[in-house]
Amino acid sequence: MYNIIYVDSGVCASEGFFSDGISAGLKPNGVNDMAFIYSDMACEIASIFTTNKMTAAPIRHFRAKGDFKTNFVLINSKNANAMTGKNGIEDIDEILTKCDEKVINPVMSSTGVIGVRLPKQKIIDGMKLFDLTQKNPHAAAKAIMTTDTFSKEIAFKVKLEDGTSFNIGAMAKGAGMINPAMATMLCFITTDADVSKAEMQEILEEITKLTFNAASVDGDTSTNDTVMLLSNAKSGVFNRDAFKEALFKVMHFLALEMVRDGEGATKLVTYNITGAKNDSEAERVAKSLSDSLLVKTALFGEDPNWGRVASTVGASGAQCSEDTLKISFDNLCVYDCGKLYFDEEMERKAAIVMGHKKFTISCDLGISDGSFKAYGCDLGHEYVKINADYRT
Amino acid sequence: MYNIIYVDSGVCASEGFFSDGISAGLKPNGVNDMAFIYSDMACEIASIFTTNKMTAAPIRHFRAKGDFKTNFVLINSKNANAMTGKNGIEDIDEILTKCDEKVINPVMSSTGVIGVRLPKQKIIDGMKLFDLTQKNPHAAAKAIMTTDTFSKEIAFKVKLEDGTSFNIGAMAKGAGMINPAMATMLCFITTDADVSKAEMQEILEEITKLTFNAASVDGDTSTNDTVMLLSNAKSGVFNRDAFKEALFKVMHFLALEMVRDGEGATKLVTYNITGAKNDSEAERVAKSLSDSLLVKTALFGEDPNWGRVASTVGASGAQCSEDTLKISFDNLCVYDCGKLYFDEEMERKAAIVMGHKKFTISCDLGISDGSFKAYGCDLGHEYVKINADYRT
Repeated sequence: MYNIIYVDSGVCASEGFFSDGISAGLKPNGVNDMAFIYSDMACEIASIFTTNKMTAAPIRHFRAKGDFKTNFVLINSKNANAMTGKNGIEDIDEILTKCDEKVINPVMSSTGVIGVRLPKQKIIDGMKLFDLTQKNPHAAAKAIMTTDTFSKEIAFKVKLEDGTSFNIGAMAKGAGMINPAMATMLCFITTDADVSKAEMQEILEEITKLTFNAASVDGDTSTNDTVMLLSNAKSGVFNRDAFKEALFKVMHFLALEMVRDGEGATKLVTYNITGAKNDSEAERVAKSLSDSLLVKTALFGEDPNWGRVASTVGASGAQCSEDTLKISFDNLCVYDCGKLYFDEEMERKAAIVMGHKKFTISCDLGISDGSFKAYGCDLGHEYVKINADYRT
Repeated sequence: MYNIIYVDSGVCASEGFFSDGISAGLKPNGVNDMAFIYSDMACEIASIFTTNKMTAAPIRHFRAKGDFKTNFVLINSKNANAMTGKNGIEDIDEILTKCDEKVINPVMSSTGVIGVRLPKQKIIDGMKLFDLTQKNPHAAAKAIMTTDTFSKEIAFKVKLEDGTSFNIGAMAKGAGMINPAMATMLCFITTDADVSKAEMQEILEEITKLTFNAASVDGDTSTNDTVMLLSNAKSGVFNRDAFKEALFKVMHFLALEMVRDGEGATKLVTYNITGAKNDSEAERVAKSLSDSLLVKTALFGEDPNWGRVASTVGASGAQCSEDTLKISFDNLCVYDCGKLYFDEEMERKAAIVMGHKKFTISCDLGISDGSFKAYGCDLGHEYVKINADYRT
């Protein structure tokens, strides 16, 4: 048995971690645009990067280092350092030579516009403002935002039965999920749990599949997507079940925060697929629904158009049939194997569910026991507005 | 050698074909909502139907008939007869028993809202207004529209060197391509060419891949998608090359008309992919671009954001690298293997191209010689408006 308790200190929740955000003039008006995470002990790193083949320079730079420990992550917003070729790598090398002398094997992470060289001197000057003794996680979380309308942080203290404890904290950015123009999704997780690199990587991959990879705003995959988990093992404590549960809570919360902040989104919808041939077919259906433009616009219009849901299930390629399918909006069944008559009373009730900010669309395919949950949002005028003119 | 000459008579261009559209009261205000195509000789049929597993009743009804010839197609708009189970099939059976006595093996095709039974009596009453001696192709093309803002027709006379000739004509509907709420894409092609069923099917499949299947408004696949090619062989003439070229012209024109009429679309963009590992990887890249929300909203905003194009190419999964990629907007190269500096002058020129109603985005992946062309449109506020409230 263990307790997982919410704490307010984001990426600084774990022992020995420091963080802050400052303004280096990359964004206008003195808004925070650079952040660091520093640990007073070297950390093992688990990481998951984008599958986009046009991998941004920071990720190529990280990968080229091979197996290593670090105690310092430098993050900038406003510029993704993507599609910048060898220059992009050289810029990182030069910037990282200017780190504080306490720093070992520093890494860099960037988000923002694609195809423009980093403003190197501004970043180097900005680093001089860093104070590695600061614990200002909220300032850091603000500094990594792009079109995010709010910052995204969470942290937990995990207390084990024997009185020992460890911590997990995180910050993330991402509002178009996943938006290549912004090189969107970044998540940095820190822990003082005494977990091995291999175990940490295994757990991170498992949970990413159920959280960040199950969340969609626009179905895109950026050049810069990064999830990084740093452990300095400072607590000397580890319990796999507790660690896994706490990490799931952290990542699930942040993934849903990103969808909630989806560009112009007004609704957060869970797609709960059951009865599929297997889990992977359920995942296919869930993601088809969360990515469908027609479903997303119906959500925005609060139109209880179950026909679009049924048709999208059919178009997903998963095994299904109108004779075994059931569709519910929250607890209201709107299609039941063709046996239900969708009358005006039902339409009225369904429209009430669709009026909520948060609800679940469930599809039971009635084939076997495969299941998956995905998370999506609606698509409205604000999305078009934000994305039709992102750069200017 | 042969000549392909435009004629104005749509699905009635071919000898022995008759067609008309009438109002049966399915749509309000006396707007045309039912059409027929009749041939005075029985026709061989080539057909391609949706891959959606929630196949609409008319398609299941057609397939259940096995191998047959027909001389009559009944088409209604406003109701898709989809997700209607056995009732949907029985309704079609009952309706088709009321056909004129000259009709053999009639088939039915429907488009409109999903999940509502056909208004059977209205359709049966509407059929009484049909006059099988009429040649009113434009009225028929109007009757099959849903959210289309204009009707879509084309026909050609094909003259061979020896003085003989045959005809191909067609009508289509589709504005969200492919929009399940409207069960969107229908295309009916008639010809008097003396082509065998097998050859006609083979050519139809080949050309569908390069036309309708290369065109995308919203990347969806409906419950009712149908392409049907009817040949009564009345001309006694056939030339494979000429037939293929004319059929390509017909289907290419109609596919582009659908994209041009894409819900709320203001731009028609050709994605010309070359230099891919193979044709299928080129197709993957082309379709990723035409389906990308971020590319589509940038088009709407006339924002020459080549970074979104590069990132979408990278996200497609096709083999590619920023060191070999070239991107052009019409003839203006905006990215050349990282060697180009995208300055303000270039941005100004690129913005001019993006201001056009029609342009080409070319990506040369620089890997090998695979190529594909896809067709797409932008996504703007009108799309959201139309789709947020389709049914009400």
